[in-house]
Amino acid sequence: MKFDLLRLIDILGTISFAVSGVFAAMQKKLDLFGILVIAFITAVGGGTLRDMLLGDLPVGWMRNLVYPVLIVTATVVTILFKKIVGNFQATLLVFDSLGLGFFTVIGLQKGIAFELHPGICVALGTITGCFGGVIRDISLGTIPLIFQKEIYASASILGGIVYFLLRLIPIPADMVEVIVIAIIFFARTVAVHFKMSLPSIY
Amino acid sequence: MKFDLLRLIDILGTISFAVSGVFAAMQKKLDLFGILVIAFITAVGGGTLRDMLLGDLPVGWMRNLVYPVLIVTATVVTILFKKIVGNFQATLLVFDSLGLGFFTVIGLQKGIAFELHPGICVALGTITGCFGGVIRDISLGTIPLIFQKEIYASASILGGIVYFLLRLIPIPADMVEVIVIAIIFFARTVAVHFKMSLPSIY
Amino acid sequence: MKFDLLRLIDILGTISFAVSGVFAAMQKKLDLFGILVIAFITAVGGGTLRDMLLGDLPVGWMRNLVYPVLIVTATVVTILFKKIVGNFQATLLVFDSLGLGFFTVIGLQKGIAFELHPGICVALGTITGCFGGVIRDISLGTIPLIFQKEIYASASILGGIVYFLLRLIPIPADMVEVIVIAIIFFARTVAVHFKMSLPSIY
Repeated sequence: MKFDLLRLIDILGTISFAVSGVFAAMQKKLDLFGILVIAFITAVGGGTLRDMLLGDLPVGWMRNLVYPVLIVTATVVTILFKKIVGNFQATLLVFDSLGLGFFTVIGLQKGIAFELHPGICVALGTITGCFGGVIRDISLGTIPLIFQKEIYASASILGGIVYFLLRLIPIPADMVEVIVIAIIFFARTVAVHFKMSLPSIY
Repeated sequence: MKFDLLRLIDILGTISFAVSGVFAAMQKKLDLFGILVIAFITAVGGGTLRDMLLGDLPVGWMRNLVYPVLIVTATVVTILFKKIVGNFQATLLVFDSLGLGFFTVIGLQKGIAFELHPGICVALGTITGCFGGVIRDISLGTIPLIFQKEIYASASILGGIVYFLLRLIPIPADMVEVIVIAIIFFARTVAVHFKMSLPSIY
Repeated sequence: MKFDLLRLIDILGTISFAVSGVFAAMQKKLDLFGILVIAFITAVGGGTLRDMLLGDLPVGWMRNLVYPVLIVTATVVTILFKKIVGNFQATLLVFDSLGLGFFTVIGLQKGIAFELHPGICVALGTITGCFGGVIRDISLGTIPLIFQKEIYASASILGGIVYFLLRLIPIPADMVEVIVIAIIFFARTVAVHFKMSLPSIY
């Protein structure tokens, strides 16, 4: 049951990330191939960078075809039905925020599996959750959005810190994961709703 | 004989890719060092990214000095004789298209050696053939050309698909390689000649 | 004693690189998270790329927490006291040039440890010393400064060549390192002082 829930979040998150890539690429008037590459980068870029930094190679999506199939399908469907999909922006935000939480937890767990320091694990969680969007923006010639104003990485970092705090308490690992995903989801959606951003330093 | 032909295509392809990098860098008025780096990125960037994704490290050009020597030489010659080299644009397009075919086949074979799914092998062929230019464009602050309108990656993808179809028929592996390089070369040059691009989705 | 000197140069170089990243990020009005990422990229980006190309993974800063701690601290201090730190530009240039020399030597030594050709080792030294700044500039949407006019990479390449020439003479390895760092430092600061750049090819 719990496995199924996480699996569903993973799938929905991957789809949402890919769809966000498709829309970003269409804004820049890319052609079909360009859109597909940007959808890929957005969906698996964070995990790919993480695995390249860790040396866990070949990268995951080459060994698990579920991701390429999901991304290609999401790309084709979004292009064919762009108006309909565009109407689901609010729904996509929900999936995207769930995906952010899920990918962050995956990154945290991978860091732990490599026996790295909690601070590095938090960085790996953030890279997994956020750097697909960063590489997408750089590829499209713009300064990454999350470097500028959005509460996005911050939600991921917060989740990572809470993850390690909760591990100090004797509660089941499964529950920790679900709580952390919920916190990241909540932080992200509340921030979007209230248009919150990090305090300005300028 | 056949080995020599492929070897020649590899060398001519590397030179053409490097020269295309030099011209792109000179358009942006880079200095000598910048031009050399961009020539390198264009010529070996695709294979380097592929090897970093696969974990086949250190990357090839660090272990096989033929490539660095070719690239440095091509860069110096192009800078010194830029007008003369510039007159050979049509010749370079031929080499570039041959190189695209050759590098695609190298990527396909590497994916097979890593026992990856045909779809992933096609992606690796495309990455090997096309992503040097992608990283070059991103480094120069522009949206990659092949994300926008050119039939370039499409030729590489087509070649990859044909490669796996031909492997179903009992013909020698050598011949499959030559046929695939020819198809990619043909698709690319015909597309350039007729200014073809992917069907617009806008 | 000598170890302590190199260690100090390493620490001061890392701090200077991080501070230069913070200032570049603040010029682009990034938020706190963006500034921190750019500081990280600038300070460890060159060594990270080198290790990803070599396959020496997980990358160094994940296993040695001194670097993340130095970078986060340098970032926070620079943001809090930006005017004061800004007054130390001349001091930072000194550290930055020392850091360039030190990181170059680290890259050279790593290439030798991997038994690579001297020419590749020189490239690895240059990547270690210079590509943090390159990735920083690309992430910020600008063409890398060192591709355009500064004598920066050239100092690193010069140091690398001198390193291998000096190894032909029977002098202690420690002394070679110190001489090379001094040469890179000298070449860089003299070039900045006299606003020197590579000869124009246009």
